[in-house]
Amino acid sequence: MRTSIATVCLSGPLTEKLTAAARAGFDGVEIFENDLLASPLTPEEIRARCADLGLTIDLYQPMRDVEALPEAEFARSLRRARHKFALMRRLGADTVLVCSSVSPDALDDDALAAEQLARLASLAQDFGIRVAYEALAWGRHISTWDHAWRVVEAADHPALGTCLDSFHILSRDGDPKGIADLPGEKIFFLQLADAPRLAMDVLQWSRHHRCFPGQGGFDVAGLVRQVLRTGYAGPLSLEVFNDVFRQADAAATAVDAQRSLRMLQEEVGTAPLPPAVVPTGVAFAELVTPDAQPVAGLLGALGFARAARHRGKPVDLWQRGDARVLVNTGPAERREGTRLAAIGLTSPDPAGAARRAEALLAPVLPRRRAPGDAPLEAVAAPDGTELFFCAAPGGDAPDWRADFTDTAPAPADGCRIDHVALTQPWHHFDEAALFHSGVLGLRPQASVDVADPYGLQRSRAVTDDAGGVRIVLSVGPAPTDGTAHAQHLALATDDVVAAARRFRAAGGTLLPIPANYYDDLAARYEFADGELETYRDLGILYDRDAHGVFRHCYTHTVGRVFVELLQRDGGYRGYGAPNAPVRLAAQHTARGFTGG
Amino acid sequence: MRTSIATVCLSGPLTEKLTAAARAGFDGVEIFENDLLASPLTPEEIRARCADLGLTIDLYQPMRDVEALPEAEFARSLRRARHKFALMRRLGADTVLVCSSVSPDALDDDALAAEQLARLASLAQDFGIRVAYEALAWGRHISTWDHAWRVVEAADHPALGTCLDSFHILSRDGDPKGIADLPGEKIFFLQLADAPRLAMDVLQWSRHHRCFPGQGGFDVAGLVRQVLRTGYAGPLSLEVFNDVFRQADAAATAVDAQRSLRMLQEEVGTAPLPPAVVPTGVAFAELVTPDAQPVAGLLGALGFARAARHRGKPVDLWQRGDARVLVNTGPAERREGTRLAAIGLTSPDPAGAARRAEALLAPVLPRRRAPGDAPLEAVAAPDGTELFFCAAPGGDAPDWRADFTDTAPAPADGCRIDHVALTQPWHHFDEAALFHSGVLGLRPQASVDVADPYGLQRSRAVTDDAGGVRIVLSVGPAPTDGTAHAQHLALATDDVVAAARRFRAAGGTLLPIPANYYDDLAARYEFADGELETYRDLGILYDRDAHGVFRHCYTHTVGRVFVELLQRDGGYRGYGAPNAPVRLAAQHTARGFTGG
Repeated sequence: MRTSIATVCLSGPLTEKLTAAARAGFDGVEIFENDLLASPLTPEEIRARCADLGLTIDLYQPMRDVEALPEAEFARSLRRARHKFALMRRLGADTVLVCSSVSPDALDDDALAAEQLARLASLAQDFGIRVAYEALAWGRHISTWDHAWRVVEAADHPALGTCLDSFHILSRDGDPKGIADLPGEKIFFLQLADAPRLAMDVLQWSRHHRCFPGQGGFDVAGLVRQVLRTGYAGPLSLEVFNDVFRQADAAATAVDAQRSLRMLQEEVGTAPLPPAVVPTGVAFAELVTPDAQPVAGLLGALGFARAARHRGKPVDLWQRGDARVLVNTGPAERREGTRLAAIGLTSPDPAGAARRAEALLAPVLPRRRAPGDAPLEAVAAPDGTELFFCAAPGGDAPDWRADFTDTAPAPADGCRIDHVALTQPWHHFDEAALFHSGVLGLRPQASVDVADPYGLQRSRAVTDDAGGVRIVLSVGPAPTDGTAHAQHLALATDDVVAAARRFRAAGGTLLPIPANYYDDLAARYEFADGELETYRDLGILYDRDAHGVFRHCYTHTVGRVFVELLQRDGGYRGYGAPNAPVRLAAQHTARGFTGG
Repeated sequence: MRTSIATVCLSGPLTEKLTAAARAGFDGVEIFENDLLASPLTPEEIRARCADLGLTIDLYQPMRDVEALPEAEFARSLRRARHKFALMRRLGADTVLVCSSVSPDALDDDALAAEQLARLASLAQDFGIRVAYEALAWGRHISTWDHAWRVVEAADHPALGTCLDSFHILSRDGDPKGIADLPGEKIFFLQLADAPRLAMDVLQWSRHHRCFPGQGGFDVAGLVRQVLRTGYAGPLSLEVFNDVFRQADAAATAVDAQRSLRMLQEEVGTAPLPPAVVPTGVAFAELVTPDAQPVAGLLGALGFARAARHRGKPVDLWQRGDARVLVNTGPAERREGTRLAAIGLTSPDPAGAARRAEALLAPVLPRRRAPGDAPLEAVAAPDGTELFFCAAPGGDAPDWRADFTDTAPAPADGCRIDHVALTQPWHHFDEAALFHSGVLGLRPQASVDVADPYGLQRSRAVTDDAGGVRIVLSVGPAPTDGTAHAQHLALATDDVVAAARRFRAAGGTLLPIPANYYDDLAARYEFADGELETYRDLGILYDRDAHGVFRHCYTHTVGRVFVELLQRDGGYRGYGAPNAPVRLAAQHTARGFTGG
């Protein structure tokens, strides 16, 4: 199906919005009136710009407070409409959105509404224009899709149809089932938006908190299926008002939007995608650094051995148990200081994973990084992290490990990468969650808010069902906050106490945790003799859920990166979120060694 | 009455919170448990720090999910409580807050709740501690103040009383009238918070959107009056969870908080303040600039004459009609480029205005700026703008105009300063509104959201009733946004068309407004022949309200400052807000000459 996006979804001036929409692969746009009013381009110039970009203008919107008015006022509506229809001809737009009236002057009289809408449609017809009438969820008298449809049906005019909007329908818990019985040719337009389930005033909810399908809590796909049963042949068009998108880069938002529509079309069956290939494990994490020494010191103290060296590049493979960390000191990577730049994901089908990623607009990275390297499939996540799809060892596909020459044996124990935590650029948190679920087939977990001393952080994990891959996405309280740049690597061990002791004995510094925290633990739980003293000594934090126990501690920070040592027992499922405020405060206190 | 503040209201580590509270004049604090857990200080050290700062610890909070539990679980509550009571003794805190249970295990059994709370209070009494029981608005079975009180009354224990919280009471539209009948000695604590009237989930509302009294929509003073009738003798204590305060500077937030309590005490009659002296007009606006030429060019083209020069400082007085603009090129003021640095407010009692400002914690500026200067009273607004309280000419008080020597006659016409628009630092928007209403006695108007191409701006005017003084406060979408720094000076004229023509003829540049805007005006209103063409030619924007008509246009920008020329007819009350998105977009388009 054709895809379209309302210009109000994107930030910046109209010309930038149009360029972003075209580059992301949209077929058309809805022109939001205020974007046109604020543009220095004439309607003819906008039309030409759209044509150059390969975009159709699928809708001009909105007209408000048109119908069910006393005759003198309706005459003013018609006068206004005549101007707008003339404008639309100059623009080359043939469908106009009319929202149900919110005017205090509007009468509760369906027959009058139908009669006046028919007169409006007659005028529109003279200009070759169709009127799509939509029920706003907060319309004064008409606020549901079926009520709007009854008025359209009563008006019975060929240039009058209805516009369905998933937000207005689903925010009122409207039942979309009856939609399948509408005549498809009378659905002139379909606008899609999702939204988180918030108990708040519906107008504020609509104006500030809409999001793209798949990012909220609505069953948008279920509604689209109903609409498709009618034979609707218009575009799938996004109309999303969101305070974050208003500030974000239009090009990135447009890609996020188009990705959400491709996933929606896969779900409703109108446009298949290469199937998701869920990764089964983390093959490696790659740190880039201008100075290998502090990283080597950290990994060495953690019990990693420098196990191998890349044949052609300044990259060392450090390993302990099944945890593998690449340390890259190549010159191109050194500018930003030490950071977590890439994740290798073990994939049952690397080529298939890359095909899906490409179909979902993930930037594909050059496959071969040096002559003779195994041709790894790789894409970039929204935050710039490189994701490599690595074949499981022993199969037919090229093995990334073959590029490395062994230098020392790695300690064999139960150590593995439990999760990788990546702070996301402000404005792109929802995009990141949709990317990781849609592209990688990982499952997003619930969002949690965590209090940092200087604001709330939001955090959300995406995981496979077996727990082989866990990526924790988080976002800081504001774009200027320095904590927005931290990244961490969490290593699971069979014995976190032993691991912490070994790290400290090897000269590592563990993040000190305040004594008050342990007094509180003593109030909340009973411990074996000496157990709490051990935790207090090492700075080990403790949590329980319905399934089991979680113990974890933190190293000092190198560049943007620190390491968490952890132990999961009894099927504990979380990430120690209740302890995060204490950890964040301790990192602020110890800023000298967090590097923040 | 004594004033107190919960540490959760302020950002940063506990020690910074305590310092900020003490400096702002609070007598005590509520220690929020998480702040203690995250602090590296021992309870004894925190106690000593508070004592050094002259702060009492009025409350330790919160204990949750304590009561109405099956016996085995309540035993765990008691075990936990014993630890906490021991901690409170180390801390020197004698009152603990217990919130009504939200646990799914809590039983709907008031008798059991009362019995268990009495047992908790007995344990507390052994430690010399009192238990203040509070109904959370979202408590599982107990969610109203009167229900919590009935349980406290039934428990009938001397160490058990109730805690009243204005948010929990007023957010549920609870009727505070019966509160006056409570025995004052059983109200162990009073927590105050205001909130904007939002229709949303009460838990989210409470956790993210509370504000200080006077900044929201609740009748906090009415509730406090009820409590005072009981003979309550504890502190007035603020407990505010707010996403913005979490990020803002703790010292500024603490001052804002203390100011709100002083205004509240004035309102309820427990601590009078010097009465507000409402300014009657704008005596002058002062621009500071490193380069007088562009400012002189702008003012000259606007028809201002360089009317006088300061006797002792590099300050020129430019005047047209009643609009006076000081241009200061003094070296101390030059670092930040051209900006609006001060406003002279005509005051019936400058000394009285300064006394109130000082009592409300406004920084008082040195009264004499140069030898021989008239001793002007001046304070700093939260955004750093200097406010001078100027005597009306001809009275006994010193006249600022006497410091100036006339150099040329000013054109005599109806030109005057209509309003001054100041963009506020992010995080301090509500504080600014409270400052201007509380300190100056101006009346805050409704907040409006305005769409900028890169986010929403929020804007709010404060005015005197006669319209002699209008200050428009606004805040940009995010702290990094460049538009957050614009300021403007709006000049009212009797004929905006003539004023715009004169400005252009004198070489000034008017902000060009897109032709599409005028097509839309033509659709919305009927105009006399040629009228719209005139507006289009000059870039004049047009608005109507129920009272009259507003026409306005904008000059180019010098440094952070641009000028608006406007004409109010027929009692129009607004500021042309519907046109703001078009103006903001035009300023982005013309960024080359906005200096942004």
